[in-house]
Amino acid sequence: MKRTALVGHLDASHQNQTVTLQGWVNRRRDLGGLIFIELRDRSGIVQVQVEPDSPAFAEADRLRAEYVAEIEGRFQMRPEAQRKGGLADYEVIASRVKVLNAAKTPPFELDKGGEVSEDLRLKYRYLDLRRSDMQRALLLRSKAVTAVTEFLDAEGFAQIETPMLTKSTPEGARDFLVPSRLNPGEFYALPQSPQLFKQLLMISGFDRYYQLARCFRDEDLRADRQPDFTQLDMELSFVEQDDVLELQERLLAHVFKKVLGHDLPTPFPRMSYHEAMDLYGSDKPDLRFGSRFVDVTELFRGGEFKAFASAQTVKVLVAPELTRKQIDELERVAKQNGAGGLAWLKRDGDGFTGGISKFVGGIAAPLIEQTGVEQGGTLLFAAGEWKKAVTALGAVRLSLRDLFDLAADGPRFHVSWVVDFPQLEFDEESQTWTYMHHPFTAPHPDDVALFGTERQGEMRAQAYDLVLNGFEIGGGSIRIHDPEVQAKMFSAIGFSEAAAREKFGFFLDALEYGTPPHGGIAWGFDRLLMLMSGASSIREVIAFPKNNRGADLMAEAPSPVEDAQLAEVGVAVRGEN
Amino acid sequence: MKRTALVGHLDASHQNQTVTLQGWVNRRRDLGGLIFIELRDRSGIVQVQVEPDSPAFAEADRLRAEYVAEIEGRFQMRPEAQRKGGLADYEVIASRVKVLNAAKTPPFELDKGGEVSEDLRLKYRYLDLRRSDMQRALLLRSKAVTAVTEFLDAEGFAQIETPMLTKSTPEGARDFLVPSRLNPGEFYALPQSPQLFKQLLMISGFDRYYQLARCFRDEDLRADRQPDFTQLDMELSFVEQDDVLELQERLLAHVFKKVLGHDLPTPFPRMSYHEAMDLYGSDKPDLRFGSRFVDVTELFRGGEFKAFASAQTVKVLVAPELTRKQIDELERVAKQNGAGGLAWLKRDGDGFTGGISKFVGGIAAPLIEQTGVEQGGTLLFAAGEWKKAVTALGAVRLSLRDLFDLAADGPRFHVSWVVDFPQLEFDEESQTWTYMHHPFTAPHPDDVALFGTERQGEMRAQAYDLVLNGFEIGGGSIRIHDPEVQAKMFSAIGFSEAAAREKFGFFLDALEYGTPPHGGIAWGFDRLLMLMSGASSIREVIAFPKNNRGADLMAEAPSPVEDAQLAEVGVAVRGEN
Repeated sequence: MKRTALVGHLDASHQNQTVTLQGWVNRRRDLGGLIFIELRDRSGIVQVQVEPDSPAFAEADRLRAEYVAEIEGRFQMRPEAQRKGGLADYEVIASRVKVLNAAKTPPFELDKGGEVSEDLRLKYRYLDLRRSDMQRALLLRSKAVTAVTEFLDAEGFAQIETPMLTKSTPEGARDFLVPSRLNPGEFYALPQSPQLFKQLLMISGFDRYYQLARCFRDEDLRADRQPDFTQLDMELSFVEQDDVLELQERLLAHVFKKVLGHDLPTPFPRMSYHEAMDLYGSDKPDLRFGSRFVDVTELFRGGEFKAFASAQTVKVLVAPELTRKQIDELERVAKQNGAGGLAWLKRDGDGFTGGISKFVGGIAAPLIEQTGVEQGGTLLFAAGEWKKAVTALGAVRLSLRDLFDLAADGPRFHVSWVVDFPQLEFDEESQTWTYMHHPFTAPHPDDVALFGTERQGEMRAQAYDLVLNGFEIGGGSIRIHDPEVQAKMFSAIGFSEAAAREKFGFFLDALEYGTPPHGGIAWGFDRLLMLMSGASSIREVIAFPKNNRGADLMAEAPSPVEDAQLAEVGVAVRGEN
Repeated sequence: MKRTALVGHLDASHQNQTVTLQGWVNRRRDLGGLIFIELRDRSGIVQVQVEPDSPAFAEADRLRAEYVAEIEGRFQMRPEAQRKGGLADYEVIASRVKVLNAAKTPPFELDKGGEVSEDLRLKYRYLDLRRSDMQRALLLRSKAVTAVTEFLDAEGFAQIETPMLTKSTPEGARDFLVPSRLNPGEFYALPQSPQLFKQLLMISGFDRYYQLARCFRDEDLRADRQPDFTQLDMELSFVEQDDVLELQERLLAHVFKKVLGHDLPTPFPRMSYHEAMDLYGSDKPDLRFGSRFVDVTELFRGGEFKAFASAQTVKVLVAPELTRKQIDELERVAKQNGAGGLAWLKRDGDGFTGGISKFVGGIAAPLIEQTGVEQGGTLLFAAGEWKKAVTALGAVRLSLRDLFDLAADGPRFHVSWVVDFPQLEFDEESQTWTYMHHPFTAPHPDDVALFGTERQGEMRAQAYDLVLNGFEIGGGSIRIHDPEVQAKMFSAIGFSEAAAREKFGFFLDALEYGTPPHGGIAWGFDRLLMLMSGASSIREVIAFPKNNRGADLMAEAPSPVEDAQLAEVGVAVRGEN
């Protein structure tokens, strides 16, 4: 027998028709001599009723939770006015039931999957994936892939696969290594990103490339990370930054519309890195809510409160009325993020109490005026070196968001660009200048002249990050295609020509054979889908993820292997050969 | 400046318009004081003319082969009647030229790329990829991906990614291993295929899954293989074999139509494994041409020629007139493929000369009648155990094809199914029964009763291969979902329950929790694209392939790594720690 419909596609057009359905027993109940079966497939759940005198009754009586069944029956739908919004609004009166397969009792109740330990869910992932949340998330992800493919194809992008077994480089994160059997003592690395290959494709003249690329970084997995993850990777030739940004805006809006039916307003607001840090203390500010910092450096300059009097920066964040306990917690956050402490004030009439109130008598009025703090409200301060101060206060801002659900009144999705990242960063530890993303990022054309001057720290890169609800969901840049600019860049970060060649060998060769102006971006596809589906972890949008020890609890990977296997590929477990 | 068109998109609508183009200098010629530039982008080549008094002349004079340039000028197209089909039919009279980047002289002439050594091409792959053959092949591949995506999405398939870091299993080919830093002494394996995971997705209820999956097998690369390759992987629930085959036919026809504009007739012819072997000596017969074997076992039975008189099988292949040297070469092929020799006859009037002619005096007439061999034509024989005989003669058949270009008169593409593979094979070496693909392949329902009987070698599997022009481009099966059948299968191949559990652990658990009937297929995507693009190697449809030592000659992978890197992941090069 063939199924005639997925259960979720049953509608008025099937009224009183005989339908054949196939799926899983979501639940069985016996009531008044009847058997009620909730039959589930990937499209939804429908209620099936088996009457005691039905020829289907004996077979239906065998059904237990998670059995696989084929059910034929008459579809009935209550008149619209009588529907109560439950499963009984629609039902199938079974005339034939066939058990297609039995099932053991699952180790956890599927509709309580959200409550059991994640380890148990991961061990029985194939059952966990039956839950409607997981089905929805992975089907949504699939739709997003289709939406991306159709959009980029129409825009003239070629989908090209780049190597999975490539060369280990000393740059960036730690590589996963793969011993080569044919070349004993040598190793491949799994790709951290297709960065060099996609630039080579531009040198090859492919003009517009994209790929949903699996990438690998052997990092510690404390945060919400996976050892392998998926990047939507793109590169375009003969473009400037605005071209890339404009195309991304249309692409993301297309994906949101096709997948969620959600209209994303374009163009996305753009904010410089400096502005984002200065106002929100983050290079990926959550703009679903306000809570901008107010700069009160000048107000405190040379004043009574010595800690602020000569500070490079004094920023203040306006908060609602806070308990002492809440302030302590926020101070802990500030300290964790590099602040020495968290000065505070509570507004009381025309002045302040608590915290550093004894030092602000003289500036209470302008402080109230500049911050707009309301009666009973709290001011939270960070002061000192600019970047340190805003970073710490940025973390406090996010804690306030979580504490008071500040994002709840904002838009469901807020997308923005952060642009004009610094071309060079000064690394305090090594006391040298270094690059922020990679040494092929092009500087802003107006700033090239600053290379090698004492103002080179002010240089802006043609780099951009795509930010959604406080998460970086994409990042990219225009790349250097001019050998002279490349030489200046290497010189600025203290790479001799020999050192550059050693690190980037064949790629520097390639750059000399006719490189077009080009730039691109990579989206963190897992994270984007996590946000689109409203999940709290990327593990909720990956079918078979690793846990935070890098282990697949279901397949039991990684695992020890036979020594003979290791011998074949020319390696041994350390200390054992 | 923005480009106004790709050069390949210039047409009558641009006549006398000013266009801006960007691309590479394919060639520069100076003629009669003018400079002629062939400007190339991914869409094609256009001729640009720069006149001596043009303001663009000085900059144009800087251009050399492979320079990147932006050119503005007036587009001119000859009247249709005057076109000669060359580049001069269309030209751009340059008014502005800008060198966007210089280029060193390439190490080989791009339009002679087909003639230089493959090693040189692979070392400078970014230049090799500029050649029109490579551009065409990779753009065709990209189109195929889009066609697959749109078709399967419309058919309700979900695209789901399966793990890249998984468990090493003793089955199948050799695994690539990845040491785990977080779990020292333990290893991941790169996936040989998503087989188990896609079956788990069916158990999870996803109903229809697909993925363009990167797969890894650490095999010797003598044949046209890559250590990593791409599979179009699919699985469907609640289906029977015909459902899978019918869908594949529509999918492949869609891909050929969208990508090549080629109509592939459906349904594809189906042939049993036994018939394919018996008539063509191959389980992936090239059906663009005939040359079926003729069975003459009975004709020789008990006859004069002792070598054939009691043979299980005597097959004959009809060939054109062959020289002695050609026959010797074909005999070498037959021997390489398991035959003891290659008996032959040349038709001469109503009889035969040469080869075994002195033994066939009495059966010349029926031999001519049954084979239809023409005057001067050759008969080539293989005899002995059926499978050995047909296999050897199948190889001879393909050599004849290559020798006489027999496929040239056939259709450009011939697609067929080979079905009814044996469920079990007898392994002479270990004297045990074993499975042909994997132990989860379902037997034909009519044959299940043969398990454990002396006729179990006759059991047909519900397995199918998709064959294009003599290449297997896909293979799959209906899977076992009934635990009783699974137990019989394990028993037939001599696996105890404990042994089965040890090898397939978590997967056997999963099968018990409500497994729907399901089946699927995997296409060798690289090979399909090779055939569609008319290339002679899969390396011609892969952007950055490895050579036959598994090496990337451009990136220089694999390579030695620092011992500190190895120490971090807990391994050492064998014999060195």
